[in-house]
Amino acid sequence: MKFFVFLFVSFFLTLTGFSKTRLSMSELIAQSKPTDWRSLDPAQTLYMELNTGRVVIELAPGFAPNHVDNVKKLTQEKYWDGLAIVRSQDNYVVQWAEPNSSDTAKKKTIKTGKATLDAEFDTPWDAKKSFVKLKDGDVYAPEVGFVDGFPAARDLKNKKGWLLHCYGAVGAGRDTASNSGGGTELYAVTGHAPRHLDRNVTLIGRVVSGIELLSSLPRGKAAMGFYDKSEQAIAIKAIQLASEVSEKNRTQLEVMKTDSKIFQDVIESRRNRPEEWFKYKADKIEICNVPIPVRTK
Amino acid sequence: MKFFVFLFVSFFLTLTGFSKTRLSMSELIAQSKPTDWRSLDPAQTLYMELNTGRVVIELAPGFAPNHVDNVKKLTQEKYWDGLAIVRSQDNYVVQWAEPNSSDTAKKKTIKTGKATLDAEFDTPWDAKKSFVKLKDGDVYAPEVGFVDGFPAARDLKNKKGWLLHCYGAVGAGRDTASNSGGGTELYAVTGHAPRHLDRNVTLIGRVVSGIELLSSLPRGKAAMGFYDKSEQAIAIKAIQLASEVSEKNRTQLEVMKTDSKIFQDVIESRRNRPEEWFKYKADKIEICNVPIPVRTK
Repeated sequence: MKFFVFLFVSFFLTLTGFSKTRLSMSELIAQSKPTDWRSLDPAQTLYMELNTGRVVIELAPGFAPNHVDNVKKLTQEKYWDGLAIVRSQDNYVVQWAEPNSSDTAKKKTIKTGKATLDAEFDTPWDAKKSFVKLKDGDVYAPEVGFVDGFPAARDLKNKKGWLLHCYGAVGAGRDTASNSGGGTELYAVTGHAPRHLDRNVTLIGRVVSGIELLSSLPRGKAAMGFYDKSEQAIAIKAIQLASEVSEKNRTQLEVMKTDSKIFQDVIESRRNRPEEWFKYKADKIEICNVPIPVRTK
Repeated sequence: MKFFVFLFVSFFLTLTGFSKTRLSMSELIAQSKPTDWRSLDPAQTLYMELNTGRVVIELAPGFAPNHVDNVKKLTQEKYWDGLAIVRSQDNYVVQWAEPNSSDTAKKKTIKTGKATLDAEFDTPWDAKKSFVKLKDGDVYAPEVGFVDGFPAARDLKNKKGWLLHCYGAVGAGRDTASNSGGGTELYAVTGHAPRHLDRNVTLIGRVVSGIELLSSLPRGKAAMGFYDKSEQAIAIKAIQLASEVSEKNRTQLEVMKTDSKIFQDVIESRRNRPEEWFKYKADKIEICNVPIPVRTK
């Protein structure tokens, strides 16, 4: 009799999409093993130093090798140091660039980096490449999922893969021509995922820590959120490669491996939230709502 | 011969999803007729007065009649005046409430309104109700679209309709019990659409103007973005019903009718952006990326 009750209860819990044994994301993180996490590679990590703190950006050389290489060169020649955040558009992006771009006397010179590059809107992709697929589908792309900690899409028919404009994505601003970007102007997504920008701009990475320093900036009053007065622009003290910062001054972060079993458990725990507060179980999740856990070592 | 060339070109433009005659959203707005727009109903519009300006909220009595009625009563008894924004969580919500909720001596008394109400997570819905369906589908809901200017979903099988947690959506915060909300604590979405909250919280309307005054607030440092010091809370001067504000002090806004032909043109123009800058045509749009145009009269 007890066994039947147990079976019935199990069946009921399965039906309702709710299991007492399902853990919340914070419980999963508490139970995780050290091998479920990876450290950021200092050679692929940028520190943007503002007066309010540090923004940590993980670069994605697997998707935009030329742009990543160029941004690193610009960083190493200290191109960014003393430049500024010139744009903050509500529910869209924050952008940083040369604030004196129309004043050749004041404009900073590019030395070893390049001013423009051919676009890397997408990259060759096939089924052999690692891709942790999300089962719930997507409005924009044939398949979405995760590649080494980045939300991404693939189109196996046309053999292409690309990064997604989720919150915190970092891209290379450009003018009308596809090859007018290159990394001398960068932006971070600070609003609802503008997925119509996917494959229209080269994404070079994503903010893994400190996005709130960008997203809470005052919005610019000029068109497209540009600051209309130069004194409103937010000074950038420096952008540095983590590998060029002494080890004790690095931000010691670990990111949950997106090809791990526990990350699948995190996704499932977010598809059907086990916390008592949730009454309606979505049984679905949209790619940009999947959190990629980051913690301090 | 010329005719065939014309036919071929038209066919090619159709194939590529690009037509020279397609207008951008701003061009469509410039061409619109006065009848494509509606004024906000002052009896269904809230003004939240902050030291930095006014946030305009359109209420949705068609989805949450009891909550909207209660929030209006709280507004009329000046419940909100002198209360505060107590929470700003990055990429999520801003919330306003009684900052002294645990101090019965300082706590404001509710007079004609109610402290709690039964939930209005969804509402009865059938195919006869007006619903402007978006053709591109959705990860979370069987059908999504627009109802009188609000992004919404419907489930005709189960005869339910509900509002969506897109950017700017305003809802009634609650504790664990479904009936522990009622409108004495409200929140606005200030990040990527947290669609897992759909049908878990009663939405009462959406911000149509001034969301940037909320979304750019400093993030709270305590758990869930609550401000950890009371002096960080942002004072609310007043929340008023527009109908109780003299006509000359009202914000004269018009919203594009979402059941108009021109709104369909706006959606199409956003599905496949005609601006030269866009190289890749998405040919899709996700519901929370559809702009609902608002203009000053």
